[in-house]
Amino acid sequence: MQVPVAYEQAMARKYPEQVAIAIARDAQGKYNPITLGWTMITSHEPPLMAISIGHTRYSLEVIRHAREFVVSFPTSAMASEALLYGTKSGRDLDKLAASGAKTQSAGVIDGVLLTDAVANFECKLVSELETGDHVLFVGQVVAAHMNEDRTAGRLYSLGDDRLGGVTPD
Amino acid sequence: MQVPVAYEQAMARKYPEQVAIAIARDAQGKYNPITLGWTMITSHEPPLMAISIGHTRYSLEVIRHAREFVVSFPTSAMASEALLYGTKSGRDLDKLAASGAKTQSAGVIDGVLLTDAVANFECKLVSELETGDHVLFVGQVVAAHMNEDRTAGRLYSLGDDRLGGVTPD
Repeated sequence: MQVPVAYEQAMARKYPEQVAIAIARDAQGKYNPITLGWTMITSHEPPLMAISIGHTRYSLEVIRHAREFVVSFPTSAMASEALLYGTKSGRDLDKLAASGAKTQSAGVIDGVLLTDAVANFECKLVSELETGDHVLFVGQVVAAHMNEDRTAGRLYSLGDDRLGGVTPD
Repeated sequence: MQVPVAYEQAMARKYPEQVAIAIARDAQGKYNPITLGWTMITSHEPPLMAISIGHTRYSLEVIRHAREFVVSFPTSAMASEALLYGTKSGRDLDKLAASGAKTQSAGVIDGVLLTDAVANFECKLVSELETGDHVLFVGQVVAAHMNEDRTAGRLYSLGDDRLGGVTPD
């Protein structure tokens, strides 16, 4: 039986929710990562991905400036990096350097890939839509990469500010 | 180490991916569900959710007609219903009746909730964006509901056409 509740109470039942990291080059030349829970695929042909960035976030102006970005799927072992990228601002910090994460150059766009991630997708910005307190960016995937090691699974938000892996039942 | 691969090969590493079901009333008065993997939240205030519907799908015209829809989070026990809603078309079939799923009336919109789901969100359509072979619909959540039974977790796509639950590691 469904019972009416406050939005926040019902939405607290959404977990586990997959985590992605978007990385774009800022005007100073720094590659800036942000951890996101609100991402989805939105087209097969052409391959398009959508990400939601809050109006207050530094990544908003970075992505509008760069007009291209990498979407990376972190592994379950990357919780500490993901937490840092999601809670610190690139206005004040070189987050990739602070995390010590291994990176490698993207192949098509001016960007970096997270070497230890499950997969990385190079995207060119094709459209954006204002959505309340966020902006929804749509990027076309122009190159894809995956980890040679196929054993590691994705990282998820588990609720109560916890991040970790999941196993199918 | 990341290695360049075809898009489909890298994207095959995305699983588990959470599943949602969108339900809207068609022009004949039938409540039509569709199972979706491509959904996300896209604003806190106001609360907005985004769903991607393929250009060929019956739900595209249904949602454009109804301009409101329910987003339901099925439980891990609802794999068979979700599979039916994702593979059959409401043009030919009353999918809710065919599945035998228990429903109850929405509170604010003209819609139905899935009684056995984890949670249901009543949404009013606020915008849409063409995204390749899909249309991205943004709905504002105007009412939320959750299952009195809080023990059941969400349903996920697990890859290779399998659906099931997950457990945090």
